[in-house]
Amino acid sequence: MKFELTILGSGSAVPTSKRNSAAQVLNILERYFLIDCAEATQHQLRRFHIPYNKINHIFISHLHGDHYFGLMGLLSSLSMQNRRGEMHIYADERLQKIIEGQLQIMKTRFTYPLFFHYLSRKEERIYEDRSVTVTAFPLLHRKDAPVCGFLFQEKERERTVLKKEAEAWKVPIAFMQYLKKGADFISPEGEIVSNSRLTVSPPPARSYAYMTDTLFRERFADVVRGVDLLYHEATYGKELEAVAKENFHSTAEQAACIACLAGVKKLLLGHFSARYPDPTCLLAEARAIFPNTFICTDGDTFEIPALKRNT
Amino acid sequence: MKFELTILGSGSAVPTSKRNSAAQVLNILERYFLIDCAEATQHQLRRFHIPYNKINHIFISHLHGDHYFGLMGLLSSLSMQNRRGEMHIYADERLQKIIEGQLQIMKTRFTYPLFFHYLSRKEERIYEDRSVTVTAFPLLHRKDAPVCGFLFQEKERERTVLKKEAEAWKVPIAFMQYLKKGADFISPEGEIVSNSRLTVSPPPARSYAYMTDTLFRERFADVVRGVDLLYHEATYGKELEAVAKENFHSTAEQAACIACLAGVKKLLLGHFSARYPDPTCLLAEARAIFPNTFICTDGDTFEIPALKRNT
Repeated sequence: MKFELTILGSGSAVPTSKRNSAAQVLNILERYFLIDCAEATQHQLRRFHIPYNKINHIFISHLHGDHYFGLMGLLSSLSMQNRRGEMHIYADERLQKIIEGQLQIMKTRFTYPLFFHYLSRKEERIYEDRSVTVTAFPLLHRKDAPVCGFLFQEKERERTVLKKEAEAWKVPIAFMQYLKKGADFISPEGEIVSNSRLTVSPPPARSYAYMTDTLFRERFADVVRGVDLLYHEATYGKELEAVAKENFHSTAEQAACIACLAGVKKLLLGHFSARYPDPTCLLAEARAIFPNTFICTDGDTFEIPALKRNT
Repeated sequence: MKFELTILGSGSAVPTSKRNSAAQVLNILERYFLIDCAEATQHQLRRFHIPYNKINHIFISHLHGDHYFGLMGLLSSLSMQNRRGEMHIYADERLQKIIEGQLQIMKTRFTYPLFFHYLSRKEERIYEDRSVTVTAFPLLHRKDAPVCGFLFQEKERERTVLKKEAEAWKVPIAFMQYLKKGADFISPEGEIVSNSRLTVSPPPARSYAYMTDTLFRERFADVVRGVDLLYHEATYGKELEAVAKENFHSTAEQAACIACLAGVKKLLLGHFSARYPDPTCLLAEARAIFPNTFICTDGDTFEIPALKRNT
């Protein structure tokens, strides 16, 4: 029942000795989703003991080097380890040219099938399985590198059957699937047993949103409304708002505004400019607007626990 | 008068938590030469406090990812720091396609001029300045990636004039250049003053050779004969000699054989397979043949001091 984010890189364009550039891994029920892949992401995956051979889906927000220069190394290492399973990459279509171009020049190929899924410039569901959906949505960065945010959502699960109650009412196995969907049970004697006596609600579905690199626009709050956890870039402090604008980035205050407007539960700040070796000032700035804010450091993990809902 | 090697990566194909893949920086008289550039080399340069903006020449032995995947990141970081000075890369010609292909796809360019110098498949001088020469020479690795070793040599310097002696004999300033070249001095009185009374020999020219990745061939010793310092790959121990051969690599014993045959002064081993977290066994194997052998660890520096020669 895990829903856990590990920060692999919390710095911005140029890595520092303390903060690598952008990468994170999100473990939802033992599915490992890699989000961005700066140079040395494979090193960070090893350092923080992430079983990176379990990563099957990689989401690249945009094609600036600090978000994808580690991809070729990671994919190659997996190939050297004789990976066979499919790998899916969700990115700007030019990334396929960059990766496959290198493979062609070197007349080589990976040991596993690699699939590219292109990000469009509109909000769309780009991944779905039995338990999870991923939605990409456009943000606003430099023209050379259109950028997407990503929203990871657990699907609502079926109701949990109370075994003892179901046994007491002798509910047939074949009827269980209807119970899970909320149906009442009618006993052989014709008595109506309300579903709420036989089941409880599932834990609430959890959600995480990733927003970097981007200018501040109020409308970006719409897509991530109410998420449990929001990671938002805070490259600069408000004293450099003009610089942030010029470089198509956000300030810590602006990140907090998005969290407020969207009514998220918890905000994480990252992508700090190297000029903030200690980003405490950025944290204070954001907390003044959105108190439940935290600073990301490489290796940090943030879990969203599965809450029980006994109704 | 520095001649100092810093190991940035002492591991092989897949980086481990202790050893990054191949990269080294050689500081000869404050010229910084980068040799190979695995992923995260820019991280290692920062970690070991190398002023990497001073690197103007990069030598890539061959196009396997563990020797060049860090190049794009390093070049990009230099560009983000607004570097203006020329950068020269000595490599397989396909590297130009790989780097420039990415720049074209991204419709971007660096802030500084980038020059590619192609390595041929024969021994040749690829770099020369007032004090240093670099020679590339073919080694033998997989067919997809022809590999070169590199030999860095200081040039013989001119003789050092003994000021007091020269003053005592009233040698004119204009004659100093001839003294430095070894000429005797004839005093105004017609006395022949032997050059050896007025000068001493310069410190001996120093040399370093880099050999990875390669199969063992006795003939490879010819090029590196008598060097002060030889770095040679030792991916495997002799118990895996067949595997080494199959993978076009060398054992520690074979590295020591090259050192012996070439009569080098000191041997460094590196490029260890991840199966040797502690390569002491490889060291012992090599020392049995060539005692003055040392193991490389990331961050190690090896200096060749400038010896005075008072003759």
